[in-house]
Amino acid sequence: MKKIINDPSTVVADALRGMAAAHGDLLDVHLDPAVVVRADAPVPRKVAVISGGGSGHEPLHAGFVGRGMLDAACPGPVFTSPTPDQVLEAVTRTDGGAGALLIVKNYTGDVLNFETAAELAAAEGLAVRTVVIDDDVAVTDSAHTAGRRGVGGTVLLEKLVGAAAERGVDLDGCEELARSVIGRVRSMGLALAPGTVPHAGEPSFTLGDDEIELGIGIHGEPGRRRVPLRPADELVPALLDPVLEDLPFTAGDRVLLFTNGMGGTPLIELYLAHGIAERLLAERGVTVERRLVGSYTTSLEMQGMSFTVLKLDDDLVELWDAPVRTPALRWGV
Amino acid sequence: MKKIINDPSTVVADALRGMAAAHGDLLDVHLDPAVVVRADAPVPRKVAVISGGGSGHEPLHAGFVGRGMLDAACPGPVFTSPTPDQVLEAVTRTDGGAGALLIVKNYTGDVLNFETAAELAAAEGLAVRTVVIDDDVAVTDSAHTAGRRGVGGTVLLEKLVGAAAERGVDLDGCEELARSVIGRVRSMGLALAPGTVPHAGEPSFTLGDDEIELGIGIHGEPGRRRVPLRPADELVPALLDPVLEDLPFTAGDRVLLFTNGMGGTPLIELYLAHGIAERLLAERGVTVERRLVGSYTTSLEMQGMSFTVLKLDDDLVELWDAPVRTPALRWGV
Repeated sequence: MKKIINDPSTVVADALRGMAAAHGDLLDVHLDPAVVVRADAPVPRKVAVISGGGSGHEPLHAGFVGRGMLDAACPGPVFTSPTPDQVLEAVTRTDGGAGALLIVKNYTGDVLNFETAAELAAAEGLAVRTVVIDDDVAVTDSAHTAGRRGVGGTVLLEKLVGAAAERGVDLDGCEELARSVIGRVRSMGLALAPGTVPHAGEPSFTLGDDEIELGIGIHGEPGRRRVPLRPADELVPALLDPVLEDLPFTAGDRVLLFTNGMGGTPLIELYLAHGIAERLLAERGVTVERRLVGSYTTSLEMQGMSFTVLKLDDDLVELWDAPVRTPALRWGV
Repeated sequence: MKKIINDPSTVVADALRGMAAAHGDLLDVHLDPAVVVRADAPVPRKVAVISGGGSGHEPLHAGFVGRGMLDAACPGPVFTSPTPDQVLEAVTRTDGGAGALLIVKNYTGDVLNFETAAELAAAEGLAVRTVVIDDDVAVTDSAHTAGRRGVGGTVLLEKLVGAAAERGVDLDGCEELARSVIGRVRSMGLALAPGTVPHAGEPSFTLGDDEIELGIGIHGEPGRRRVPLRPADELVPALLDPVLEDLPFTAGDRVLLFTNGMGGTPLIELYLAHGIAERLLAERGVTVERRLVGSYTTSLEMQGMSFTVLKLDDDLVELWDAPVRTPALRWGV
C-alpha cells in the first residue's frame, strides 16, 4: 500500500487537521467528535443542512460545507458511517432555530446512525428531518445497502437544498425540495482499478489487466458485471444509457450532467468522457443546461468515473446558479 | 494501459471537445490549431496573458483560461510542446492592442517554440514578451530541460499576472511582475506511482512496491533519488525543506502554500500532507497567509504530490484575492 499517510488509524483526523489549516476562513473543524461546521454557524432562522458518511469520498462531504451548501458534515472513519453522536453534535452546533435536514446516502449503517441521531435530537426538542438519497441505478441491494446506493447525485442534492435553505426556505420546503431532487437524479459508475482502504492495506477488489467493473459502488462494491476494457465511445453509453433509461430522461428534458472522477482518474479523461456524453444527450434531444466535471464523489484513489444526470426546471437552475462558497464548489461569491 | 480514451492519437482533441462542451460560457475552443481562448477575447487595451505546454497536466493550462487569469492556452500533444503556429494563433486571437505576455515552463521544446512564436508575432508588429518559469528545486538540468524545470509555481504565476493584466497593468508592468513572482516561488514533488503516456502505452517509469521518487518531474523525469516509502511526517519535510532552504524562506516571511496532487492522488492524502506542512512552516516562523490544495499541475494519473511556496507581500495578496473565473479556479465572481 502506497499512501501519503502516517498511521491508518489517524488518517481521518490528520486530514481534518489539514482541512482546518487550509480553510479556516470557511470551516470550524472539531475532532472529538469529528464534525466540520461552517464558520458562521449557527445561522439564525436558517434551516441547517447536514450530511456526512464514511471518509474516503472527498471532497464529499466536508468539502461542501459553507455558505449556500452544507452547514455541517460528519466524517466517519474511512468507508464507515459516522456515529449518532457525531450527527447529534452537528445538529446542535448548527441549530439556528429553524430545524435541520439530514441528507443521508443510502447505506445501512448511515441510515441507522442518522435515524438514531434524529431521534436523539427530537428528544431534545429539535426539529429534524431525514432524507435518503439512492441515485445509483447499477444494482438493487448490495454488500452495504438495502435498495439502491447513494452516490454522485448527493453533491447536486446538497447544492440545491443548501441554496434553498440559504434563501430562507423552511424545513418543510427544504424536505420537499430534497425529495423532489432525489426523484429526478440518477447515476452509474465504472472502475478501471481499485482503491485501498488504509486499515485494510490491500486493494478493495482486483481486476484483470483489460477488465473493468461496470456499475461499481463507491466503496468498491461489485456492480453489474465485469467486462473487457473498451474505447470511451463504448464505455460512455454503457454508463449513460442505463442512467437515462431508468428515470427515464427523454427528448425535451433539460438536465444537469455531472461527470465525476473516482479519485485517481485524470481530468483529461473526464473531459474526454464528458464530451462524448454531451454528444449522446444531444442526439437523444436532451438539453444539457448545466455541467459539473471533476472528482467530487470519490473512492480513495480508485480509477474510474461516474455520470449523474439531474432533470432540471427553472427553479432548480436558479438554485444551482445561486452563490456557493465551500472548499470544493465556489462561485458567485 | 487502462484509460477512458478512444485512440491515443485523438486524446487531446477529444478532451478539448469535452472542455468546449463543459465550459462554453467561459471558453472558445479551437482545434486546428489547438488553442483555448477566453470567450470574450480579445479584451480591448488589456495585456493578453498566454501560456501552454504539453497536455497531460490538466487543468494546467486550459483550465485556467478566463477572466482574471489566462487569455489563451495552447495545448500540445501529451507531454510535448505546442507548435509556434499554435502560440502565434493564440497571440493573434487575443490581441487587444496592449501586447501579450507568454508564460513558458522551462522545458527545451517549449522555450524554443514559444520564442519562435514571439519572433513571428514581432514580425507582424505585435508586442510580445516571454517569461520562463523554473521553480522546481529538485534538479538542475534534466531529460527535457537546461536548467530547472517549471512546475506547480506556474499556476500561481498565471493567477497573479492574470489579475494584474485584468486591472490594466501594462506590458512592462506585467513582465516585471512575472519576473518578480518567478524569483519568489519554489517547488518540489514526489511520486508514489507513475502515469502512462497514451501513445507510449507503458508507465513512464517503474518503482518498487515500497519505493518513491523524491524530486520527480511532471513528465516522470527522474528526481533527486529513490528512497523507501516513509510516513507522511517524514515525506513532507523531505519535500518542503529543500523548497524552503532554496530561496530561502525564513522566519517572518509571509507565504502562499500550494499543496498539489499529481493526478492520481486522493484529496484526503493532500489535506493530510497540507496539515503537516502548515505545522512545519509555523514552527519555522513562516506565516501561511493563503493556500491552494488540489490537483492543479498534474502528470496524467501519476500518484504523488508537490509543494509550492510563494513569498507574499501586500500587492501579491491583493492580486491573489482578485476575482477569477476559469474552469479550475473561481472566486469572487
